[in-house]
Amino acid sequence: MKRNIYLKKKTLEEARAIVFELAKLIRLETETIPVIQASGRVLAEPLFARISSPPFHCAAMDGIAVRAEITYGATEESSKVLQIGEGAIYVNTGNPIPDGMDAVIMIEDVHLIDSERVEIREAAYPWQHVRSMGEDLIATEMAFPENHKVTPYDLGALLACGYREINVKKRPTVLIVPTGSELLEPDHLHSIGLDRRSGIIESNSYVLCGLVVEDGGVPVRHPIVKDDPSRIKEALLANDERVDLVLIIAGSSAGSEDYTRSIIEESGEILAHGISMMPGKPTMLGKYRDRPMIGIPGYPVSAIMAYEELVRPLLCHALHLMKPERPKIKALPTRKIPSKLGTEEFLRVKVGKIGEKFFASPLPRGAGMITSLTRADGIIRVPSLSEGLNENEAVEVELLRPLDQIENTVVMVGSHDLTLDLLGNLLGKVYPPVFFSSHNVGSLGGILAIKNGICHMAGLHLLDPATGEYNFPYIRQYLKGMEVRVLHLVRREQGLIVQRGNPKKVKGLEDLLHKEISFINRQKGSGTRILLDHTLQTLSLGPGKIQGYEKEEFTHMAVASAVASGRVDVGMGILSAARALDLDFIPVASERYDVIIPCIHFVDEKIQKVIETIRSKEFKEMVLQMGGYDVSRTGEELYSSE
Amino acid sequence: MKRNIYLKKKTLEEARAIVFELAKLIRLETETIPVIQASGRVLAEPLFARISSPPFHCAAMDGIAVRAEITYGATEESSKVLQIGEGAIYVNTGNPIPDGMDAVIMIEDVHLIDSERVEIREAAYPWQHVRSMGEDLIATEMAFPENHKVTPYDLGALLACGYREINVKKRPTVLIVPTGSELLEPDHLHSIGLDRRSGIIESNSYVLCGLVVEDGGVPVRHPIVKDDPSRIKEALLANDERVDLVLIIAGSSAGSEDYTRSIIEESGEILAHGISMMPGKPTMLGKYRDRPMIGIPGYPVSAIMAYEELVRPLLCHALHLMKPERPKIKALPTRKIPSKLGTEEFLRVKVGKIGEKFFASPLPRGAGMITSLTRADGIIRVPSLSEGLNENEAVEVELLRPLDQIENTVVMVGSHDLTLDLLGNLLGKVYPPVFFSSHNVGSLGGILAIKNGICHMAGLHLLDPATGEYNFPYIRQYLKGMEVRVLHLVRREQGLIVQRGNPKKVKGLEDLLHKEISFINRQKGSGTRILLDHTLQTLSLGPGKIQGYEKEEFTHMAVASAVASGRVDVGMGILSAARALDLDFIPVASERYDVIIPCIHFVDEKIQKVIETIRSKEFKEMVLQMGGYDVSRTGEELYSSE
Repeated sequence: MKRNIYLKKKTLEEARAIVFELAKLIRLETETIPVIQASGRVLAEPLFARISSPPFHCAAMDGIAVRAEITYGATEESSKVLQIGEGAIYVNTGNPIPDGMDAVIMIEDVHLIDSERVEIREAAYPWQHVRSMGEDLIATEMAFPENHKVTPYDLGALLACGYREINVKKRPTVLIVPTGSELLEPDHLHSIGLDRRSGIIESNSYVLCGLVVEDGGVPVRHPIVKDDPSRIKEALLANDERVDLVLIIAGSSAGSEDYTRSIIEESGEILAHGISMMPGKPTMLGKYRDRPMIGIPGYPVSAIMAYEELVRPLLCHALHLMKPERPKIKALPTRKIPSKLGTEEFLRVKVGKIGEKFFASPLPRGAGMITSLTRADGIIRVPSLSEGLNENEAVEVELLRPLDQIENTVVMVGSHDLTLDLLGNLLGKVYPPVFFSSHNVGSLGGILAIKNGICHMAGLHLLDPATGEYNFPYIRQYLKGMEVRVLHLVRREQGLIVQRGNPKKVKGLEDLLHKEISFINRQKGSGTRILLDHTLQTLSLGPGKIQGYEKEEFTHMAVASAVASGRVDVGMGILSAARALDLDFIPVASERYDVIIPCIHFVDEKIQKVIETIRSKEFKEMVLQMGGYDVSRTGEELYSSE
Repeated sequence: MKRNIYLKKKTLEEARAIVFELAKLIRLETETIPVIQASGRVLAEPLFARISSPPFHCAAMDGIAVRAEITYGATEESSKVLQIGEGAIYVNTGNPIPDGMDAVIMIEDVHLIDSERVEIREAAYPWQHVRSMGEDLIATEMAFPENHKVTPYDLGALLACGYREINVKKRPTVLIVPTGSELLEPDHLHSIGLDRRSGIIESNSYVLCGLVVEDGGVPVRHPIVKDDPSRIKEALLANDERVDLVLIIAGSSAGSEDYTRSIIEESGEILAHGISMMPGKPTMLGKYRDRPMIGIPGYPVSAIMAYEELVRPLLCHALHLMKPERPKIKALPTRKIPSKLGTEEFLRVKVGKIGEKFFASPLPRGAGMITSLTRADGIIRVPSLSEGLNENEAVEVELLRPLDQIENTVVMVGSHDLTLDLLGNLLGKVYPPVFFSSHNVGSLGGILAIKNGICHMAGLHLLDPATGEYNFPYIRQYLKGMEVRVLHLVRREQGLIVQRGNPKKVKGLEDLLHKEISFINRQKGSGTRILLDHTLQTLSLGPGKIQGYEKEEFTHMAVASAVASGRVDVGMGILSAARALDLDFIPVASERYDVIIPCIHFVDEKIQKVIETIRSKEFKEMVLQMGGYDVSRTGEELYSSE
């Protein structure tokens, strides 16, 4: 079996140099379009004003046009009377100044005698309240240079200086070819159930189409191509005549069915295969029949990174535009983040502004996690010569969302609960919307985040085994001297989540010790883990014999999903997670989930909005509807260390 | 005659509060659209994952899928042989893990024996190189909240979690009604000559259409409506059923033919008329048949400001999006700028980065000058309680262009010459493009700008009357101790610009003294003014008798245009300006136009690009083609104070 071997990996910088060479293969033709459709297009030539603007001397005010000379001598004491239609003509702003006249007297200074005569009590000076012909633009002056990208404002100037049509560069046409026998067209979605294995919905091509449009290109999506050399070859030749750039998705890694490279090599040249960036390593750069061709990796985040780092610069170069830069801020990583030496990593982060400082918390790094981009507020580039990021060392973040949105975001860190999504959704309904960002790091992680000042609030459900009390003992221990308030969110049911119909007949924690029952645990520091360990101890059950005790998931839903997919038989989690995936549930305990808020944040308007929302009838109703919760004390303040 | 009287002027803040109330009248319906067309749309409801992503356990690597158990015990010394199709199945990244298997061994670690058997030398652990079902998104989890604006990234997540179609808010439909009997549709442009007075091309509505599209609305442009109450009324009712917001352009000032207000009052309510902002004062806010209606002023800059300050917030509110904020920087005004107390002014500025500092130079303030926006890099808001801006006091500038474009802009200040546009155009052709910003402040203004460090280079043609020498005496006098280099740009012809055919039979400067000949002068400090004054003195002619000596224009083209329009008979200027407008020309002097560049900027890459371009064959050829120039020494360095 022939497998691809990567060419010597290129750095991103080397890859970009290749891209700039490839851009030269694209020669965009000129097309003539109406000005009124030109917003966003790029001028193919400099445009010189064809007519002046204004095209004649015109009134700058509403009033009467006069010849200044005839007004000389008019004063308060000795007014002059002018005949309408002869010495004076009514004009509105923008009207041409009648021949022989050279000034406008404002309507406020014109005193009506009757419908045919007016009186003036002050002389006008020549060119008073007159906009001269060409005041804005003079015929033959350069209005816009070549390669200028037309804005809506420019439409006004272009029409005003006499253009009805202009010559612009054709938009580059980008052929996008998704490949892979495992892929399904989105049309199959109506027939896919939860546990069908018919394939994976192809989505990368649509993401790329959206990005190409944003960058001023015209995407042409090819239907999915199976892993079959002759079909791939056929696809690459589609729309041969008018395609400026070919993107072929997947088929460029070293897998067994990746035929792309050999196909390219038949009628073209591979210039790079393997780039030291992460995600995005398997990107391929080449020429195919004298057109640039870029092999885009199949993982969604890799595909987007390959696009943004290499395809976007290529399109911008072809259109002769500077690559758009994202706004940047400096932020402190919320934890140490190691990174691979020799690879430029694009770390997706959530960004929060706590007090005056920005903090960046890393999202999952897997290239398959599209949510690591859709949930991200920004991207940190970890340079290839860096071994990672340190807390307390601010780094540059390229923002994916507007700064004022980030500044209007409440950051909650701590334990995971399904009601937090409902809360976030309701907050987004106020105006201006308050954005809500919640990070699942477990209850103890939440307390530490409060202590470290990297969040606005934390959610926790921490049982103190010694006293049986929830949350307060931990707050007293970890947040000594810190003024916080505690708001009760919900009471909820914890228990064992098992497959529908409970095929393994699990009745309680004791059954976890059976050899044929596999378990999935929650991470250390999570309230659920503490609850499990405490309950096992109460029952004198040793965790050592539980199959899978050492395997950890980070959220209730991840545990439920592991059960639903058949990966494991049992997990510990909340009732609402079991219900969400239609699983069975064996109750273990009822527990209190509270929110801690440092007093310094209490006055913050957006925090107040959170509290109002928690206390709203709408929130409680939505929580009840989800099931598994008691909201009878939701929103009550339980404790204050003030 | 009934004329409108403004209601008590509202502050911009009061006007915005009214707008937010008006926004509540807009209730956007929901529509179902394919996900693949959803980029930029706003979700009408929260979306919960319908299927997990990945939808099944799948291979995270290319290799073989196995049941981990059967690999236990495999080592370098004691390998295991697996049967393809039984114990091992080839999988590519993304393929489902076959039933009964739970791990993937990377292809690099698989040793082929023959087509049916492989050997492994290391055990696999369960779930090794497997992406768990739901790793990215678990079915029933909230994928996006209500009111979320869909990005191209999101298309990937939406398809992956099972959506083929989604419910989004309908885009708000905005009816745009341009009014004014003096207006012409752009279709008339083919028939308009330079001196036709048939009317003014209507362009505001197209600018507003472009802005509405950018803000997520659907513009519906109504054809131009004459100043006739019954037609205006008809227009306001157009597309009655589906219009969410009506913008009526012009007709809202206090002019004689502004009927809009009384029409609105018949079937609605005026909530504000006159807002203390500049440009944009005559904006009107109201309701018309229970729909918000905004009266947009007729001057192009006023129209845009009214849109951006009031219509955009309204549309954003209706879509429940935050109003997009422009990036902001701090810049130093290049001069003191007084502003009217009690009015918020939007000052359009050019921004330049000289060394490490940003400088903002104001553009013309007239509301009729669309070029004051198309040429602007940013807008300074001068608050209503401020009397203006001071040099040396940094102010906030909202940027209209990307920061990196501003940072890549060469700022030239000083004398005006037509070749500078050609230079700017050629610089834009290099890649990445160098942007060129030239400010006409006259030659002396240019030298002072160099002295004050607010530009990269200055253009000048300053005759020293005492020695007859050009430029050097001034540089010695004004830039003592400063290291500068002087690059020769062009030699050019200065003379008297007169109407075609020279109807007043002007032969030379002496004729300017004739009473029936009107003249237009250049501003003090301009090289042309100095040349004129010097030549008059040489000829012993007193300027006192020249009709119009005190009237000043700021550029050669403005002088030529004043002559072309018949406003004056004669002006002094360069031959190329006369040629551009097809005017006659009586030569007075040939002069040297040079560029001074401080040595500190000489190393700057973009300045080097300017010098290369000046020295290029292409530049010289374009200048020659324009006529009126001698380029035989163009690009030569004349002098260095180093």
